[in-house]
Parts: sequence; structure tokens; C-alpha cells
Amino acid sequence: MIKKKILLIGGGGFIGTNLVKYVFEELVEEPIDLVIVSRTKKNDQYTQNNIRYENGDYMDIIFLDKLFSREQFTHVFHFASTTVPVSSNQNIIGDIKDNLIATVNLLEIMKQHACNFILYLSSGGAVYGEFKQDSLDEQHPCEPISSYGVVKYTIEQYIKLYHRQNGLNYLILRISNPYGPFHVSEKQGVVNIAIRKAINKQPLVVWGTGEQSKDYIFVEDIIQIIWLLMKSDVKNEIFNIGSGNTITLNSILGSIKSLIPDFKVSYESSRPADVMKFSLDISKLNKQITFDMTSIEDGLTKTLEWEYSQKGINQ
Amino acid sequence: MIKKKILLIGGGGFIGTNLVKYVFEELVEEPIDLVIVSRTKKNDQYTQNNIRYENGDYMDIIFLDKLFSREQFTHVFHFASTTVPVSSNQNIIGDIKDNLIATVNLLEIMKQHACNFILYLSSGGAVYGEFKQDSLDEQHPCEPISSYGVVKYTIEQYIKLYHRQNGLNYLILRISNPYGPFHVSEKQGVVNIAIRKAINKQPLVVWGTGEQSKDYIFVEDIIQIIWLLMKSDVKNEIFNIGSGNTITLNSILGSIKSLIPDFKVSYESSRPADVMKFSLDISKLNKQITFDMTSIEDGLTKTLEWEYSQKGINQ
Repeated sequence: MIKKKILLIGGGGFIGTNLVKYVFEELVEEPIDLVIVSRTKKNDQYTQNNIRYENGDYMDIIFLDKLFSREQFTHVFHFASTTVPVSSNQNIIGDIKDNLIATVNLLEIMKQHACNFILYLSSGGAVYGEFKQDSLDEQHPCEPISSYGVVKYTIEQYIKLYHRQNGLNYLILRISNPYGPFHVSEKQGVVNIAIRKAINKQPLVVWGTGEQSKDYIFVEDIIQIIWLLMKSDVKNEIFNIGSGNTITLNSILGSIKSLIPDFKVSYESSRPADVMKFSLDISKLNKQITFDMTSIEDGLTKTLEWEYSQKGINQ
Repeated sequence: MIKKKILLIGGGGFIGTNLVKYVFEELVEEPIDLVIVSRTKKNDQYTQNNIRYENGDYMDIIFLDKLFSREQFTHVFHFASTTVPVSSNQNIIGDIKDNLIATVNLLEIMKQHACNFILYLSSGGAVYGEFKQDSLDEQHPCEPISSYGVVKYTIEQYIKLYHRQNGLNYLILRISNPYGPFHVSEKQGVVNIAIRKAINKQPLVVWGTGEQSKDYIFVEDIIQIIWLLMKSDVKNEIFNIGSGNTITLNSILGSIKSLIPDFKVSYESSRPADVMKFSLDISKLNKQITFDMTSIEDGLTKTLEWEYSQKGINQ
């Protein structure tokens, strides 16, 4: 098997950290070198022979070009985003510059250095935006309702353009709502935010009725799916990545309340940039790989354990 | 009727000049003020009471902001583009900055100055890109195959986002292949280019077999359709704007040859960024307005007259 030399962009983020941990713990024997660029933090605990961190910003073209000159990357995993749906509409020009232009620069540098595989984390909810059916497959029209969604969708189109023009290979993964270990955002990811509020004995504010039904996926499942897709050698495809099930937020909050009984919830009117409900059709994924998703109960328990561990609490 | 004060961006270009001429000649009695911003030229012959040119570049935010502060625009007609499909792929970052970011800045300035109507000229061929049917309606998925197409499609999405967020009203017109008076580009617009080659006794190089069948629309028809749509008060819609007919390039070249018998044509292999064939479904337009399209024969004759007049030749 040919060794994969992977540049991970956004490796300090929620999903990125889970990927690094998985390579560190589970893929020791695999022919993989991982170089991580992250603006936010350096997880020295996962540094080993085949895993290295690089201080730098992928928006810095000179840094990126030097890195590609020094390393012979075979793959780029692009997990970075500077915005979330609601914040993106406050500074659209910044969103375009920091995410779209930065990614096109990355594609250009990949082309110059003959690195011809990108795995890009897109977003199920934000890219589809408005929808007409209950369950959306990858052919469903995209009507993003936030700049975050427009930018992700536009990046998808530029990746396909580089595929067509320059033979770049790609996997585009449209992720549903992930939750689990290493989540730290206060802006998005309601499951983790709810658990932290519950642990900290703070009330949670829910935007909307809580009856919106969404697809929540345990983050460690995403990581395993990524490696199964890589192993299957599929390329130049877009996949929805979700749990295949939907659940109301109120049902999740009920489960948290059963674990932490004094958890309080209040309700506010819905934010305009938020998608009210959606369900990803994962038939295409299920045809490509076989995988047992973590149940919401197991996922919540593992997430709660991790959130407790972050506070130094043993359950 | 309330007076419309229109800012025309791209008024020095092919379609823009036709619009200015039409306002000058046909809409003298209408309550319309037209202020034209163009980088390329100033057509003093069309200046009159209600038509003025402004020296400046709409990409210059300070200039644009001052202009909006001084004038109380009710409408923006945005016809500008710095790229064509093939050239756009040579400098994608430039395409994003000069067209996408410039347009988002324009939308932001419109918001700040409470100007809440934009008419945007998009592109039928470039935005749809790859297609699955012979005739494409406005619901057909968009798979642009050039940066020019990606940028136009992304601008459409940002216009819809400003509609959703800020109540901006819009008309998005996806134009087929225009030809006619005031065309000067050497890069796109095969009908005019062919006529000029024929007049200049130069051979025309056709990319492809010439058997690709496309929708060509006489530019003066586009202008009349724009005013009919404006009069109909329709808004917040996307319209395909085409002739409703397709014709092969070879058939057009045959018509030119019948007018200028020593016209020579050679054939080269097709450029990758070019859409091989397409036909726009204009049912939606036909439901909105009633209009008789100029026949290709009449359009070619009028175009030939104009091209001759540019060379100081009376036919």
C-alpha cells in the first residue's frame, strides 16, 4: 500500500481533533503521515512519529507554499471554517475572503505541487438550506440561507471545477449535526452546549420550539466513516454523512434531563439563519460502506463523560 | 407613477449601451433617471436631461458610497462582469474579487442607503453548465463549468440572501447568447465576431464542429424584455431570457455566407470551458409578458448593418 501523506487543515477544531486522536490511537499500523495545520491550538499529546503539528495559518499562501514544497503531500483533509451560519451573515466579505478565497488559494497550491486529492467537509444543513422533501439526497437542489452555506456550496463547485480542469480528485462530505468529545464552540452544536449548561447548572436557551427534528451524528462515527470511505477508494463524489435518523431537540434535552435532573430549558423565537428541520438521506453512503452508527443514547453518554472529564469530574 | 432613479453598472458594455440607447430614444416620456457607471467608455451621444454618466469604478467602495449618498437611487441594474467563461479559469481569485466581492459590496451599500431593487444579468449557459435535459427551465440544477459561471451563480445566491435578510427586491435574468449592435468583444459573442471577420475578409475559427445548437437572442429584444418585466411589476424571481429557439452555429454562418459570399470558416477542437449546446425554456417569461422575438434573419441583417456602420461602410 502506498503511504498517504495527509495535510489536515482545521486539525485544532472539533472534528479535526477527533481525527487526529483516531489516527494516534487506531491507525498506528497504517501507512499514514499526518501533518496538522491549525490556527487555534497544538495538541502535543497526539504528537508521535507519524503525526506532527505545524504552526501556521492556511490562509497564509507563502507559509502554505513552503509547506507543500517541503512535504510531498498526497492528500489534503480540509476541515477549517472561520464562521458559523449565524455569524457568517454579519460579515459576508470576511466570510468570502477567509473561507472561499483561502480555499481556492489552497486548490491552486495543490495544483502547483501536484497534490491531487482533497477531502472537504461541507455541511448538510447549511448547503441544502431550503428544501422541499423531508429527506434530502445529494441530488436535492441547494438553496443556502446563510453566507456560511453559500460559501461551502461555492467551495464545492470550485473543487469540482479543479477536478474537471486539472484532474483533482475529491470527496465532499455533507455532514449533519455532529456532537461528541472535543466540542468547545459556544456558537453552534446544541447537544454539547446543552450538556455543558446542564453540568454547569445553567439554563439552556432553545431557539424555536425545540420540536424541530434533525439528524445528529456522533463525531467519532464521522471519523470512522471517513476512513472507511478512504479505504473503499471511492472518489469524485459527494456524500451525505448523517446518522440516518432524526430526533427532536426536546427529545435529546429530555435524555439529558434524565441524566442531570435539575437541567432547565427556556425557549426563544427562532433565528432566521437556522434551518428549521432536515433529514439527510444516507442511502448513497450505505451503498458505499457498511457501518453501525452509534445510538443517540450511547453518544450522549460518551459526550457527557467527556464533558465531565474536561471539568475534572469523575461521574 | 413614481420616478425610477436607476444606477446602471456596466453601462459601457454591450448590453448596457443598448439599454442606454433605448432609454435615450424610446423612454423619453417615462419617469426614469439613469445614472451610468462604466469603466470602459462614456457615450456622450446619449447624454440628455435624464441620462448622465459618472466616471468611476463600481469596485471602488468609497466612490460608490459617495454616489449613493448624493443620489437617491431606487434601482440598480447590474450588467458588469470583468471576465468571460474561458478567461475566468485563468485567474479565479481575480474573478472572485472583481466580480463576487465587488457585487457583495454593492449589495451592502444598497442596504445602507435603503436602495432595495436590483436587476442582475446572469448567464443561462454559464450558470447551468452541465445539463441533463434538452431544454432547461429555471428549476434545473446548476453545475457551472467555469469560474465565470460559479461566480454568477454565487452572486444569485447572495442576492437571494439579501432578499431574505434585508428585504432587497430582485430580478435575476439568465440570458442566452446575445448578439447585435454595440458588441465589441473579441473573446465572446460568436455571431458578431463572425460578421466582423466576414466584413474584414478574415477567416473565422470555430471551436468545435459548429453543430452545437444554441439559443441566440437579439440584444434589442433583451432590452425590451427588461422594460416589459419592470412594467409588469414582477419581482423576486429568476427568469430565463432567450429567443425560445435554437439554431446551429453552422446555420448562422451559412446565413452570413449568403450575405458575404467570400466568408471563410475553419474548425478547431472544442474548448473545455464552453458549453456544447443548450436551450433555455422560456415558458416562465412567456407567462409573465407578451413579446414577439426578432427572427434570426432580421437580427443578423440589423447586426450586419451596425457592423458596417462601425467601419463607415454603407451597404
